Amino acid sequence: MALPVILLNCIGNEHKDYIKQQVQVKNPYLDTMEEDILYHFSLSTKTHNLPEMFGDTKFVCVGGSANRMRAFAQFMHHEMKLTGTPEDIRDICEGTDRYCMYKVGPVLSISHGMGVPSISIMLHELIKLLHHAQCRDVVLFRLGTSGGVGLAPGTVVITDKAVDYSFRPRFEQVVLGKVITRSTELDEGVAKELLQCSNELQNFPTVIGNTMCTHDFYEGQGRLDGALCSFSHEEKLEYLRKAYEAGVRNIEMESTVFASMCR
Amino acid sequence: MALPVILLNCIGNEHKDYIKQQVQVKNPYLDTMEEDILYHFSLSTKTHNLPEMFGDTKFVCVGGSANRMRAFAQFMHHEMKLTGTPEDIRDICEGTDRYCMYKVGPVLSISHGMGVPSISIMLHELIKLLHHAQCRDVVLFRLGTSGGVGLAPGTVVITDKAVDYSFRPRFEQVVLGKVITRSTELDEGVAKELLQCSNELQNFPTVIGNTMCTHDFYEGQGRLDGALCSFSHEEKLEYLRKAYEAGVRNIEMESTVFASMCR
Repeated sequence: MALPVILLNCIGNEHKDYIKQQVQVKNPYLDTMEEDILYHFSLSTKTHNLPEMFGDTKFVCVGGSANRMRAFAQFMHHEMKLTGTPEDIRDICEGTDRYCMYKVGPVLSISHGMGVPSISIMLHELIKLLHHAQCRDVVLFRLGTSGGVGLAPGTVVITDKAVDYSFRPRFEQVVLGKVITRSTELDEGVAKELLQCSNELQNFPTVIGNTMCTHDFYEGQGRLDGALCSFSHEEKLEYLRKAYEAGVRNIEMESTVFASMCR
Repeated sequence: MALPVILLNCIGNEHKDYIKQQVQVKNPYLDTMEEDILYHFSLSTKTHNLPEMFGDTKFVCVGGSANRMRAFAQFMHHEMKLTGTPEDIRDICEGTDRYCMYKVGPVLSISHGMGVPSISIMLHELIKLLHHAQCRDVVLFRLGTSGGVGLAPGTVVITDKAVDYSFRPRFEQVVLGKVITRSTELDEGVAKELLQCSNELQNFPTVIGNTMCTHDFYEGQGRLDGALCSFSHEEKLEYLRKAYEAGVRNIEMESTVFASMCR
């Protein structure tokens, strides 16, 4: 079952505070640097006027596939009735093939590839970009397909908590060889607002549930058709049943680091 | 310092045996499936004649960037003096934007994105592809830039052992919620052959050393310019010094899973 997943977060501490929050970085060295090169975006504080290019950004939508994030930007262009043709939107990161980035009005649409390491490089540089551009009141969403757990195909899952392979709401990061555990809380208020929107539209069956993040698509998610498979169909079902009992409604590969880095 | 890294492996058990080895999968379910869809390559056993397309493959070269793997394929086309123009080589995976794949003579050149999860999806489907195509005597290489440790910029590192953040030659995979540890041994014979080639060419300073694989580009590799940084310059140097003492000569983000899956 392939299901869309929506994760969301706002950069700020409390939901009620985010409206006036400027995007913060937690790195004392950044402000002492003469130039900050956002290498994987092919952008830099010296060669680009980031406040001018990105200062009015209010929504950042990220997803794995470059083609899909281009299609999403074109869709938003059309929905917002902007001037110009949606087909002409330009990839801001055309100097690199690591990620694609499109800006349509206050919406930034960025691809991040597959898996935690790939999205984490993008998020480091995105957070710095929003900081350098002096953006305020930014809400971040991750959109994507995912494997549904006990849901009808096509159901939209709005993530309550992002959880790891053992269903715990945490992300383990290794910093200089030491394992550090970070919280993966997401913004409850925005999740409820989104569910409300979905209810008003009526066309999209939508639930709020936990999203499990794995580091492998085949063995990690219980697929029987990888190059390696050492478990039975029954063991796979048992694991998915436990996940369901722990509130997991879908499985993907980026949610925990997205949640932990965007707070 | 950005350095090229070369990892290599041959699919087979022993170096001396690999010459006549057919590519094996370790999944009892695969042969019972009517169709195997290699989803992230946009290929399938029903819609494509894989033995005809890939049966003569002898070398598989993988790297992160799609543009670079296209340039590498064009370079090989030129070096092997194949008919046709290098610029006309076609992306075999053009039905998807997840990976790119080019075939020039017996050489397959494939992009894998950034990080362990991204390359692991590709390797699952690559190993199945080589199996379905009944390939024999295949040698796999990973090529890429990497961060050098105590080496002059431009030095080529041929990987001896792929090691994790604590310098151990192992890869931790989560299978149905359980952590499993796998070996990351690479083929010594092929490494020595490559070093010999490099010595004959004389233009490329080359060493054999350990390659450390991290899951984060900024905090994981001791960079001071990420969105998050909680360590000092001295702590960073201390970690890199320990890595050097453990035989690490470069750092990248895919080597351990490449080594563990290609045996």
